[in-house]
Amino acid sequence: MDNVYVARLDALRNVMREAGIAAVVVPQADPHLGEYLAAHWQVRRWLSGFTGSAGDLVVTLDRALLWTDSRYFIQAAAQLDGSGIELMKDGLAETPSIAAFLCSALPAGSRVGVDGMLFSAPALEALASRLESAGIDLDCHFDPVGRLWSDRPALPDGKIFVHDSKYAGQSARRKIEDVLGAVKGEGAAAVFVSALDEIAWILNIRCNDVRHTPVATSYLYLSEADKVLFIAEAKLTDETRAYLASEGVRTQDYGAVTAFLAALPESVRVLVDPARTSGAVMDILGSRAVATAVSPAAVMKSVKNDVQIAGVRDAMVRDGVALVKAFMEIERRMADGEATTELDVAALLHEYRSQGDLYFDESFGTIAGYADHGAIVHYEADAASNAQLQPRGLLLVDSGAQYLDGTTDITRTIALGEPTAEEKRDFTLVMKGHIALANTVFPAGTRGAQLDAIARQFLWKNGLSYLHGTGHGVGHFLSVHEGPHSIRLNNVEAPLLPGSITSNEPGLYREGVHGIRCENLVLCRELMETEFGTFLGFETLTLFPFDRSLFDTSIMTEEEVAWVDNYHALVRERLWPALENAAQRAWLDVHTASLATI
Amino acid sequence: MDNVYVARLDALRNVMREAGIAAVVVPQADPHLGEYLAAHWQVRRWLSGFTGSAGDLVVTLDRALLWTDSRYFIQAAAQLDGSGIELMKDGLAETPSIAAFLCSALPAGSRVGVDGMLFSAPALEALASRLESAGIDLDCHFDPVGRLWSDRPALPDGKIFVHDSKYAGQSARRKIEDVLGAVKGEGAAAVFVSALDEIAWILNIRCNDVRHTPVATSYLYLSEADKVLFIAEAKLTDETRAYLASEGVRTQDYGAVTAFLAALPESVRVLVDPARTSGAVMDILGSRAVATAVSPAAVMKSVKNDVQIAGVRDAMVRDGVALVKAFMEIERRMADGEATTELDVAALLHEYRSQGDLYFDESFGTIAGYADHGAIVHYEADAASNAQLQPRGLLLVDSGAQYLDGTTDITRTIALGEPTAEEKRDFTLVMKGHIALANTVFPAGTRGAQLDAIARQFLWKNGLSYLHGTGHGVGHFLSVHEGPHSIRLNNVEAPLLPGSITSNEPGLYREGVHGIRCENLVLCRELMETEFGTFLGFETLTLFPFDRSLFDTSIMTEEEVAWVDNYHALVRERLWPALENAAQRAWLDVHTASLATI
Repeated sequence: MDNVYVARLDALRNVMREAGIAAVVVPQADPHLGEYLAAHWQVRRWLSGFTGSAGDLVVTLDRALLWTDSRYFIQAAAQLDGSGIELMKDGLAETPSIAAFLCSALPAGSRVGVDGMLFSAPALEALASRLESAGIDLDCHFDPVGRLWSDRPALPDGKIFVHDSKYAGQSARRKIEDVLGAVKGEGAAAVFVSALDEIAWILNIRCNDVRHTPVATSYLYLSEADKVLFIAEAKLTDETRAYLASEGVRTQDYGAVTAFLAALPESVRVLVDPARTSGAVMDILGSRAVATAVSPAAVMKSVKNDVQIAGVRDAMVRDGVALVKAFMEIERRMADGEATTELDVAALLHEYRSQGDLYFDESFGTIAGYADHGAIVHYEADAASNAQLQPRGLLLVDSGAQYLDGTTDITRTIALGEPTAEEKRDFTLVMKGHIALANTVFPAGTRGAQLDAIARQFLWKNGLSYLHGTGHGVGHFLSVHEGPHSIRLNNVEAPLLPGSITSNEPGLYREGVHGIRCENLVLCRELMETEFGTFLGFETLTLFPFDRSLFDTSIMTEEEVAWVDNYHALVRERLWPALENAAQRAWLDVHTASLATI
Repeated sequence: MDNVYVARLDALRNVMREAGIAAVVVPQADPHLGEYLAAHWQVRRWLSGFTGSAGDLVVTLDRALLWTDSRYFIQAAAQLDGSGIELMKDGLAETPSIAAFLCSALPAGSRVGVDGMLFSAPALEALASRLESAGIDLDCHFDPVGRLWSDRPALPDGKIFVHDSKYAGQSARRKIEDVLGAVKGEGAAAVFVSALDEIAWILNIRCNDVRHTPVATSYLYLSEADKVLFIAEAKLTDETRAYLASEGVRTQDYGAVTAFLAALPESVRVLVDPARTSGAVMDILGSRAVATAVSPAAVMKSVKNDVQIAGVRDAMVRDGVALVKAFMEIERRMADGEATTELDVAALLHEYRSQGDLYFDESFGTIAGYADHGAIVHYEADAASNAQLQPRGLLLVDSGAQYLDGTTDITRTIALGEPTAEEKRDFTLVMKGHIALANTVFPAGTRGAQLDAIARQFLWKNGLSYLHGTGHGVGHFLSVHEGPHSIRLNNVEAPLLPGSITSNEPGLYREGVHGIRCENLVLCRELMETEFGTFLGFETLTLFPFDRSLFDTSIMTEEEVAWVDNYHALVRERLWPALENAAQRAWLDVHTASLATI
């Protein structure tokens, strides 16, 4: 077999044999435990050929297996073909966990090797304890990839830049103060931050190390006496070095972090978020570590200040204008019978967005799924799958941008021909949930999981559902997915805070038929104070019409119809002045007209 | 001072000094960690005079403090008057936790004493670890009350009786088998049960040790080889001893349990539910204990079988008939201007219920709260508070019964005069939530916390809310409050299972004005199976009309009005044949007429 992955796995096995390692676990992770990885950390991809954003590889001396979830079953099966790697379908009752598999596959006395930098402390502990119950040792310092991967991409060396406080609304110095205040409140004197988006937020720095998420590979240590950013020298300039110094932050090399932590006095209490801190770092900190239930910086970051909110409002206008141009062009092509593909849709969105002021990047790879592709939740068209749009069926488009003054994320589902009754009914049931969540009022302290069913209730009543979350937090010129709050089926203790931005994106996916998702970003706001406490609600920030042709008003209440009409009036009012010509304005007028005129 | 509690606390302090104990914590708990206590375990009440169902006493050598929650602030202040015991208002930001108080009040090197039998293992661990951080030791074997309380009530010695399988629907032998099957699934060979309702359910035995909850003070140990009920000899008869033996269960004295557990082989794995097992028992089990996230018996108990469900349906008819008689009589007295008090209402309900077949007891003390008393959530009228009903305002009546074939729990709020617009609006907003929850459809696996907001949404939208749960599980001729599921603000991982019975009881309380609660019991049922999975919903079991005069149909949807009319038609259909005379039937006809005829 000359499959390149077979050869790589064989080379890995040679190193394993030398080191007395019976199995390795290679997660899709980097030492910062975020959602997106720089190329340097794509070890699982390099070893297996599987490119999905989630999935862990296990290699024993005679087998290799990849665990991934249902989003990726088809893609993984195709990409693993010929590599000899077995697909383990996560979430199916018959699929063992990785730990359970290792316990059954390896004899007692075996050793399993992992790179402890790539697992959170709780994950590492859980794995070690399960293996121990079967008499298997875990070696947390097994990292042979450096030797094997000769053309491994270097650590990112792009220059960081300052995120101007005219966008950030608050100085790094002030945020450091606030974070240290919260750290003291948790009984610690210092904090160690591994999460790249938290570091970028605290220091008002940005970079392009990770695709679509403008962060810099680094660690941050903060105490009253010492504030250190661990970052590669190559990433700094005289300007950014001076900026950091002016905010009271010194720099050390990225690689110096472990020695720095090991040399801290035994008595210092260092706050860490175990979910975002590697087991290896926790080991070094030892009894100095104070675990927090939720990172104070993550909570503070989730609450946007007035400058950030004003920025997002402006960015939404530019984003809406770009969407008007792109969807007008798609409509024109369809009307003219011009060949148009899913990739063309993504390209149009990119083209018009990038013409806008303060544009920096897309906030994630555009999902443009036509017909049955729309039902594949994390579909991203490539040359092989790229479908040509037809004058019928539904097109789902989920896209967003990074602007210096805000991050956008919007999904629209449009009918490319005369919609069928089923298409309209499905769409309207999704929209009823979207509207109910947009209109919801709730007391301060409410968690997203308490509101999730508000968006699902109409689908559920009809025996329908969707498995993804209803809403994720959104960063400000940062990660398009951020915590600590969310609106989803599973419980997350972080409440919805005034000032936080969250997506509102119920959906419905009929396999082999179509996918529907309706997504706006919403701002959590205080609505009223009564004798029963403070009540919050959502203000919709995203500005672009929903497809009026897809509403079945016969199953909508008057209130729901009014919500759509009011939202469309708002979109018209805000976008109109920013449009460039009469044709665009005419398009907007038609697409935001009252549902009563359908 | 000749306050009796001052004297008791002084006597306690003498014992503390002798034993070198600087502070004791006396919780409202017994070794079975249930909600309700036999008189023998009312130690906190005996020491403090406070009679509330929740609240912990802390006694140091120079102070005594009682922590309780907002339900009891007024009552506790009155009852503690003259005792020198300080009221600590739980839930207020300025109130320290008991552990924090002890850490600040006691010097390092102090010892705190508790009876480890009265704390769950996690509670004991948390307390010990917090105290340890301040250099304070925790002595878990400090139980001086036996010496001090000379006229302490004995352990309950009422006889147990067999709960016939014609009501239980399943033999004890079969349940033991099922429980042991689940125990094996959790990697244990035996199970130790402290929770009295679980023991009663498993063995099909009942007793009257605890007011309104027909359980027997006991422990249960089950393994393939040995099945032991630890129970006082006095509680057994030849018949029940023979019954237990026939189900494969032997008995030992209640007091023999600790020696039995201590003598178990070190290798035996014993499943325990840490939330319902005392720290003292966990200490004895040591490494033999296997902690379960949720007791298998509790889950099985929550799912009622067909015989139990048929029994509850029958009990609901008898309960509804009793309610018709009681509310008719209340109406008659009001019409005739006959003096009627809150205690009279409770007495009428008791009288008519106790005339019904298979009646055993009330399922809790009736709450009959007139006007502003209705706003006190756990109000129970006594001679001092007992209000006389007037021909105006709202009367809230929350009551229930234990029948051999099922447990009931119902709250109705009725207008005693012509209701005001505010009364109608408040009532209707509560009912909209009640109806929305009754109509809700949800996928299998859904947790109660996900549905809670469905019942609160209309109140929230108007800046209103209530702080208690929306629904609690209900036992079958057992605890009126049972787990593991619930429908409430805070997250509980146990899903709503088909066959479980839960209350649906949103409310609204305007302090000093009125209280509203609308409560039915509902049965969780499978509604449909679609390509998206299994969907569940609720069937309402309780049979008694809501007060038609309180509905403001102008703020109700057609669907909501139809729900009320359909429910009332069902009540009429089921109760009519069981009523005794034409007057009762005429009353029912009027009270279940369509809302369209208001």
